[in-house]
Amino acid sequence: MYNLEELKSGVCCADGFYADGISAGLKPNNAKDMAFIYSDVLCEIASVFTTNKMCAAPIRHFRELGDCKTNFILINSKNANAMTGKAGVEDIKEILSSVKNVVNPIMSSTGVIGVRLPKEKIIEGAKLFDFSIKESHSAAKAIMTTDSFSKELAFKVSLADGSYFNIGAMAKGAGMINPAMATMLCFITTDADVGKSEMQAILDEVTETTFNAASVDGDTSTNDTVLLLSNAKSGVYNREAFKEVLHKIMLFLAREMVRDGEGATKLVTYNITGAKNKNEAQKVAKALSDSLLVKTALYGEDPNWGRIASTVGASGVTCSEESLSISFDNLCVYNKGELLFDAKMEESASKVMQKKEFTISCDLGVGDAGFTSFGCDLGYEYIKINADYRT
Amino acid sequence: MYNLEELKSGVCCADGFYADGISAGLKPNNAKDMAFIYSDVLCEIASVFTTNKMCAAPIRHFRELGDCKTNFILINSKNANAMTGKAGVEDIKEILSSVKNVVNPIMSSTGVIGVRLPKEKIIEGAKLFDFSIKESHSAAKAIMTTDSFSKELAFKVSLADGSYFNIGAMAKGAGMINPAMATMLCFITTDADVGKSEMQAILDEVTETTFNAASVDGDTSTNDTVLLLSNAKSGVYNREAFKEVLHKIMLFLAREMVRDGEGATKLVTYNITGAKNKNEAQKVAKALSDSLLVKTALYGEDPNWGRIASTVGASGVTCSEESLSISFDNLCVYNKGELLFDAKMEESASKVMQKKEFTISCDLGVGDAGFTSFGCDLGYEYIKINADYRT
Repeated sequence: MYNLEELKSGVCCADGFYADGISAGLKPNNAKDMAFIYSDVLCEIASVFTTNKMCAAPIRHFRELGDCKTNFILINSKNANAMTGKAGVEDIKEILSSVKNVVNPIMSSTGVIGVRLPKEKIIEGAKLFDFSIKESHSAAKAIMTTDSFSKELAFKVSLADGSYFNIGAMAKGAGMINPAMATMLCFITTDADVGKSEMQAILDEVTETTFNAASVDGDTSTNDTVLLLSNAKSGVYNREAFKEVLHKIMLFLAREMVRDGEGATKLVTYNITGAKNKNEAQKVAKALSDSLLVKTALYGEDPNWGRIASTVGASGVTCSEESLSISFDNLCVYNKGELLFDAKMEESASKVMQKKEFTISCDLGVGDAGFTSFGCDLGYEYIKINADYRT
Repeated sequence: MYNLEELKSGVCCADGFYADGISAGLKPNNAKDMAFIYSDVLCEIASVFTTNKMCAAPIRHFRELGDCKTNFILINSKNANAMTGKAGVEDIKEILSSVKNVVNPIMSSTGVIGVRLPKEKIIEGAKLFDFSIKESHSAAKAIMTTDSFSKELAFKVSLADGSYFNIGAMAKGAGMINPAMATMLCFITTDADVGKSEMQAILDEVTETTFNAASVDGDTSTNDTVLLLSNAKSGVYNREAFKEVLHKIMLFLAREMVRDGEGATKLVTYNITGAKNKNEAQKVAKALSDSLLVKTALYGEDPNWGRIASTVGASGVTCSEESLSISFDNLCVYNKGELLFDAKMEESASKVMQKKEFTISCDLGVGDAGFTSFGCDLGYEYIKINADYRT
């Protein structure tokens, strides 16, 4: 038993954490482009990174640190420091060595691939950091790239005996929709007294159904990073509460990323049931949220269920025309070989498609496993943003 | 040694083959929407079909025929007869039984998924067929859906001793770009005296580097079909010549499909070399031609090589920042860890990107295997076409 109180804060809600965003001149018009997270005691770290073989310099630098505690993360937007080789890692070391009072500092970057960091600007920018400031909103804004809004969530978690801990997070990214742009970063801080290995295990588990269930198009960014820092200052911990709240926060942020997907106008939940096993359910869920034809039909608010059926069939999982059924919210449009679709149903289905959020359910009819993923539509704006991103 | 003469014809270039297209009122404005191919003697059949588990009724009907010869294919556009269950196959049987003088007739369909065939219209339409007509262009036009031009190629193949055979083909489809729309159909006819099993083996082999190398986005249509019919009337055959000409025809048609990709403005060849094995080369080639970020960069004529590197890395093949090199035509933009890209190179690379056809080469630098695929860009027009396809 525990009680949740949502806090109007982000990564500095927990005791001992500080954060802020500043402008170092990487973005035009003095927009904020650098942020820090600082803890006044050393923190245990749990992490999840991209599986991309061309992973960016910040991730390779982090791996070089090995098993250690830290009190500092420096984040920049506008430049991903990816495909920059050994020089990219050397740049990080030089930048971080210029920052005072930090132990095993970590860097995280997001933006364009294949360009060296503007080192001098970042070193100058870091001089503006004030480790006594708790401005989580400012930090959340500074890490944005093509995001149209900042993404934060924080909770105070009170246990039955009155003790409590805090956990807060910020994230950037427009889902995995634009993965090669070095999309997704998420930073979570907590004063919960959780051990490192337990924290890592919980983070891995929760990632599966949150960030890893968000619209993926087969590509995986060079920079995707989730960092969870615990300074244990509350002296309080409860596994069940911690895991549930972490899931709540990461699910919220994953969904917000998809909702903020470049050019997206709709947030669609793909609810797969009746699969032979979880792996097959996941395969179908991802195939649907990645399909260009499904995405464009969503954008056109066209209840073209044939494209959904074809995508299920093409995904190669166990399923047949006779076992499959498809629903838009609660409206079943195809049922195990039965063509239900007529003009009246089309009208009802179109109404569902016009909503900003709805669920497409596919029951594969061959087993008991399920998986849920989140996707968005693909419209003109996506192409506008991505046809000439670098300029 | 053999000699090729390109013929201004398609599926009825070979002796004994007849074809035409007519309007049965499936498309608006009396546009041609039904075609036939007829042979005055029975033909051996080789075939390749979609791997989609929801494969359409015409494919299931064909499989029911078993190992046999035929003299007739009926093709309709506008309706794919997919997801129509047993009724879809019954519809085909009823339609085909109304056609006189045909043996083991085959049907092939393309268009919208999940709607029963307009059986009466098709039966009436088939009455207009005249099996003494050789109008291959008319047939090629009738099988188009979103195609902006028809696709045909035919050759007379003369051997050293003066004997010859003919081989001709027609295809429809905008590549695998719009797979769930029941994309790709290809019909090839020949009077070469080739045995069934050899013909099938050659067709399978040639498909790999032609249609299977054309832009695929992970989805595979419910209706994809390649049918190769031989009536052996020439009494002439040469394996080497037959295979080479078949490859020439199928490569041409596959490239024409990609060039005619919905909304496409560019035809890009992805030339992968230095891969650990052929499977990994193929994986990278397909990942590149499927990537939304690469496709939108092509459309924007933006030489964003970082997206190419990221897509290679995300594909999971053996390759590293230090082994990879990337070229646009002959211009190397990234070389094994060396950042070559500056303003001057950007200008040169942009010029390549502005071409209607160019090659992106990736040398993975870890082995000797290679693969070549074909893709196109993704622009506003694709979304316009696909956001509301059914109306």
